[in-house]
Amino acid sequence: MAKHRIGIVGFRGYSGAEAVRILEHHPHAEPVLMEHRADTQEAPALPPRHPVIPCTPEAAAAEGLSAVFLGTPAEASMELAPAMLERGLKVIDFSGAFRLRTPDVYLRWYKAQHTAPALLAEAAYGLPEFCRSRISSARLVANPGCYPTAANLAIRPLVEAGVVDRAAGIVCDAKSGVSGAGRKATLKTSFCEVTENLSAYSILEHRHVPEILQNSGLEESELSFTAQLVPVHRGILETVYFRTAERDAGALIEIYEKRYAGEPFLRIYPAGQVPDLRAVARTNFCDIGVKLDGDTGRAVVVAAIDNLGKGAAGQAVQCMNLMLGLAETEGLL
Amino acid sequence: MAKHRIGIVGFRGYSGAEAVRILEHHPHAEPVLMEHRADTQEAPALPPRHPVIPCTPEAAAAEGLSAVFLGTPAEASMELAPAMLERGLKVIDFSGAFRLRTPDVYLRWYKAQHTAPALLAEAAYGLPEFCRSRISSARLVANPGCYPTAANLAIRPLVEAGVVDRAAGIVCDAKSGVSGAGRKATLKTSFCEVTENLSAYSILEHRHVPEILQNSGLEESELSFTAQLVPVHRGILETVYFRTAERDAGALIEIYEKRYAGEPFLRIYPAGQVPDLRAVARTNFCDIGVKLDGDTGRAVVVAAIDNLGKGAAGQAVQCMNLMLGLAETEGLL
Amino acid sequence: MAKHRIGIVGFRGYSGAEAVRILEHHPHAEPVLMEHRADTQEAPALPPRHPVIPCTPEAAAAEGLSAVFLGTPAEASMELAPAMLERGLKVIDFSGAFRLRTPDVYLRWYKAQHTAPALLAEAAYGLPEFCRSRISSARLVANPGCYPTAANLAIRPLVEAGVVDRAAGIVCDAKSGVSGAGRKATLKTSFCEVTENLSAYSILEHRHVPEILQNSGLEESELSFTAQLVPVHRGILETVYFRTAERDAGALIEIYEKRYAGEPFLRIYPAGQVPDLRAVARTNFCDIGVKLDGDTGRAVVVAAIDNLGKGAAGQAVQCMNLMLGLAETEGLL
Amino acid sequence: MAKHRIGIVGFRGYSGAEAVRILEHHPHAEPVLMEHRADTQEAPALPPRHPVIPCTPEAAAAEGLSAVFLGTPAEASMELAPAMLERGLKVIDFSGAFRLRTPDVYLRWYKAQHTAPALLAEAAYGLPEFCRSRISSARLVANPGCYPTAANLAIRPLVEAGVVDRAAGIVCDAKSGVSGAGRKATLKTSFCEVTENLSAYSILEHRHVPEILQNSGLEESELSFTAQLVPVHRGILETVYFRTAERDAGALIEIYEKRYAGEPFLRIYPAGQVPDLRAVARTNFCDIGVKLDGDTGRAVVVAAIDNLGKGAAGQAVQCMNLMLGLAETEGLL
Repeated sequence: MAKHRIGIVGFRGYSGAEAVRILEHHPHAEPVLMEHRADTQEAPALPPRHPVIPCTPEAAAAEGLSAVFLGTPAEASMELAPAMLERGLKVIDFSGAFRLRTPDVYLRWYKAQHTAPALLAEAAYGLPEFCRSRISSARLVANPGCYPTAANLAIRPLVEAGVVDRAAGIVCDAKSGVSGAGRKATLKTSFCEVTENLSAYSILEHRHVPEILQNSGLEESELSFTAQLVPVHRGILETVYFRTAERDAGALIEIYEKRYAGEPFLRIYPAGQVPDLRAVARTNFCDIGVKLDGDTGRAVVVAAIDNLGKGAAGQAVQCMNLMLGLAETEGLL
Repeated sequence: MAKHRIGIVGFRGYSGAEAVRILEHHPHAEPVLMEHRADTQEAPALPPRHPVIPCTPEAAAAEGLSAVFLGTPAEASMELAPAMLERGLKVIDFSGAFRLRTPDVYLRWYKAQHTAPALLAEAAYGLPEFCRSRISSARLVANPGCYPTAANLAIRPLVEAGVVDRAAGIVCDAKSGVSGAGRKATLKTSFCEVTENLSAYSILEHRHVPEILQNSGLEESELSFTAQLVPVHRGILETVYFRTAERDAGALIEIYEKRYAGEPFLRIYPAGQVPDLRAVARTNFCDIGVKLDGDTGRAVVVAAIDNLGKGAAGQAVQCMNLMLGLAETEGLL
Repeated sequence: MAKHRIGIVGFRGYSGAEAVRILEHHPHAEPVLMEHRADTQEAPALPPRHPVIPCTPEAAAAEGLSAVFLGTPAEASMELAPAMLERGLKVIDFSGAFRLRTPDVYLRWYKAQHTAPALLAEAAYGLPEFCRSRISSARLVANPGCYPTAANLAIRPLVEAGVVDRAAGIVCDAKSGVSGAGRKATLKTSFCEVTENLSAYSILEHRHVPEILQNSGLEESELSFTAQLVPVHRGILETVYFRTAERDAGALIEIYEKRYAGEPFLRIYPAGQVPDLRAVARTNFCDIGVKLDGDTGRAVVVAAIDNLGKGAAGQAVQCMNLMLGLAETEGLL
Repeated sequence: MAKHRIGIVGFRGYSGAEAVRILEHHPHAEPVLMEHRADTQEAPALPPRHPVIPCTPEAAAAEGLSAVFLGTPAEASMELAPAMLERGLKVIDFSGAFRLRTPDVYLRWYKAQHTAPALLAEAAYGLPEFCRSRISSARLVANPGCYPTAANLAIRPLVEAGVVDRAAGIVCDAKSGVSGAGRKATLKTSFCEVTENLSAYSILEHRHVPEILQNSGLEESELSFTAQLVPVHRGILETVYFRTAERDAGALIEIYEKRYAGEPFLRIYPAGQVPDLRAVARTNFCDIGVKLDGDTGRAVVVAAIDNLGKGAAGQAVQCMNLMLGLAETEGLL
């Protein structure tokens, strides 16, 4: 069987490069680098190991691509996605362009008009554990944000199970490696500003918040979300706090185990154990651990993913596998 | 005026070494290194810049020390502190030995019998912003833990002001640099295990919790505290979440500004701004910033200290200044 | 075809764990974890993904292992290797036990008597680019040290080509990530001692020096080698300085290109370009770049490997492939 | 005595900020921040602790500044220095603008015409250990480059003593923290590109080379210099290799001890011991250690400085002390 050829726009970005790396070892797909206009400044010492083509729908069609990954900012994605779809290509978009359901919500959180609103209803949200069938039949998948991936996987089963005291609210304290900010050079992400430092940002206002609300079913008033930048290259750890009437950690663990039975990329830890970043580095796993104080119902859930893996490129390949009718874990274990 | 000579036990540990460094620039005090039995393995290339004496009450008295810093584990402190006090020395203890009020609480959290319980009632808790007068007249000061220092400074004014919805609980998500774990070689703190990693530990069970409860007035059921190890040498950032009936961030800021008016080491940030680790590195400051969602009363406070500064050696020198009748900020600004 | 089962002793060490990781993706081999006596302290949250057997020749034979990787200190390897060989197992040893040709040289550099001297003559030195045929037929392979791998690959072609002014000497300034020191907890490799630091050690006396001399043909008086510990997890960069009568960088590059024509893991950079650690991270490549001042004959060669890849586990798998008659690159590209 | 007021242009840059920090604790000088045109993008949360004035000669004169530190790129320094000097201000320039003796050499290494060549002859080279008297009487001091500071302090005594086999050449393998590249945001210095990486650059061509030649007396053909970027914030370690007829490390150490007798910022290590970055972090020290193989005359010298201390702001304050007739160590020990 010939390999699917997968176009990657933004292949020099951290998520795009990770997608290339994953597809290099994929048995049924291979990467094709699509040179976008803003990508021209770097000349690496070694020649690229993959074909490079222009980033146009024409080139994509002519090369027989099965799908295109858009590792571009939202503005570029809103322009590229419709053009690619028109040519019959499947599109997986890494930006926030197609994750929210209405232009109004997009406007509020992204502070910009949506320029391809017609696609918002069509786009499938690329979280297979909750949207598998829609993804399988989608032309356009909005790959979830890194923070919402971990947050939704940690929070939604609890909300569905009704064990959260929603009046007391849920706290999600999220910590991310620097690659989550993308590869553009900024003072904020320069080595000397980040090393030996730790900073909170976008407190209660992060644009990933509406994705968490939309998928978990929480109201904005119920969720307090803070993002923090930590001096690591990759990885996200989220510490989720809530109060519950449950008095047994095992009951919470069981909720996860039932909800994620058969899920290849979810690993639930034994009582009292929680994952660290190392456990999921360079994988597509989301690891989840639970701690509960049985006397008082204070609960803490720790979820870990690799922001470039399950939080971006890994999840994109998982979605791609579904869209192309391949085994969902292909290239990812 | 002759300088006060201050004995430092555990001068090779991170907190002890920081105390030496601070005292080197103190106008009215100077460090004397006290060689403890467990400290003998290292021979630095350059000779020590300060006198080295044995770690005995006799030597301390003979050398005319004004005070002794105990940078030792709790077990050693429980042995050394009474002996030093008997010789008329003032003692500032860096360990957890004398921070809690009763042997029972100590036993519960430290899993060990207290061997000098008579001193628990006498010891002053070394948080000058709340215990200044007791410290000034104390023979024995229990230097606060690093996590509780930031937590108490952030939480107590809010509790005192009655603006916290205590039924919904307070979350304190704490992140610490590795020096907080001390200088003993362990796998958990080795470079390759820590770099590019991030891990939560002692969730809801950290032995610093009772210090926070004891000083903030919260009940255990009201506080969810998690510690996290981040790959930086020094620094603590704590993100505190609560719900409030207040609808104006300015009102919360004002609580801090009033409570800490005239305090030389507390800096309150303007609305919407929060500190990062960098802001307090190698200082004795505790910086505090507030974020409030005015529509829903979700509040987030970020507090930052240097765990070796205000979280250990800086605070110890601040207490020492008080105990010796010096200006409180001497050597610390 | 059934997969070869490969025993890994020291699978919790950094090199051993990397070997497990590589073999997990190897199409014709799979790892079997061999529990050694010193390995028992850690209980990971998730169950091991591979079979665990005792570290005995009997178990190895009973399990039908094709080969055993010894990720053990030299003393343990000198004990385990003969026992495994007697049972007909092929052995690849990661330690320095079998790299040097005589017990005398071993004694001088390792400060210990060799306890299995009979195997020194038999062991093949596991650097396929120079010892391929011996490796292919060997029972016992001494996997090269990490520093010598880069040094030999960079230096030996130049020495063979006769372009080095040996009277002026060769300098090899080597920098290594911390995983090269192994996983044992030590103060020297603890996070707070390594981060924001850089240190030279074993100057002119590193025990890897005789490996470089033995394989490059240099005399001890001709080579100045210094190792330096840098705050990264993995990777080795070596900067090699020499003087030459050549006046054209292209001529030096050509020496490498000819010598390594067809070698799958050597990449020679265009003139003026040199590799960094990133280029080889998590690969089995050795990248080499050359800089020459044409007026004066001052030459600099930069070689980069991953110390856990081509410097340890990657090279071991490359050797294993040769020993088992598999394609040399299997599992490594 | 009123404190000298010292203007600091580029106070947000790493060297400028370090100068501010040092002057904050200087008993006879205090910093005045001079707002330069390119400095306007950042608004810190806390108000500046020092007066801010415009960066003009008029303002500098009106404020009664004793001296001005120029933490600016060479092009800006060539413009600002003459204007400040005309107003009678003493100037210490941190850039490379005034370090080289002729416009031709400047042109060759900086690839730009010198626009204030008249000042090249006048400027004193700010390395007090070798140019103390000229600095003391200078109007304009060219603060040395960070690499040349360590290199000259390590190499020049050996060259003067005639113990280096110059025909075999000297190698200086230099490693620097990222702050040496300045605070401008670039991809090359962004966190994700630097962490877990190590790279050589400007091999044999670094613009600091002519400074080393000019001050050490070496010919270009005799020195091979490579700079390497390591993932630390601050610090420079240089490993210097040469061959010598000396057979006793003690003889080399004695050369340093004699040459630097009475020098407050040079520390020479005992035989076999060498400094690491930690030893000099946040100080104005240059530490030097020697290793010699007595059989073959292979010698290695390791020199360490803080690139922002003795390599920039510390050295500038040392020069300033000399220029203002203050004790040379004031504010620096």
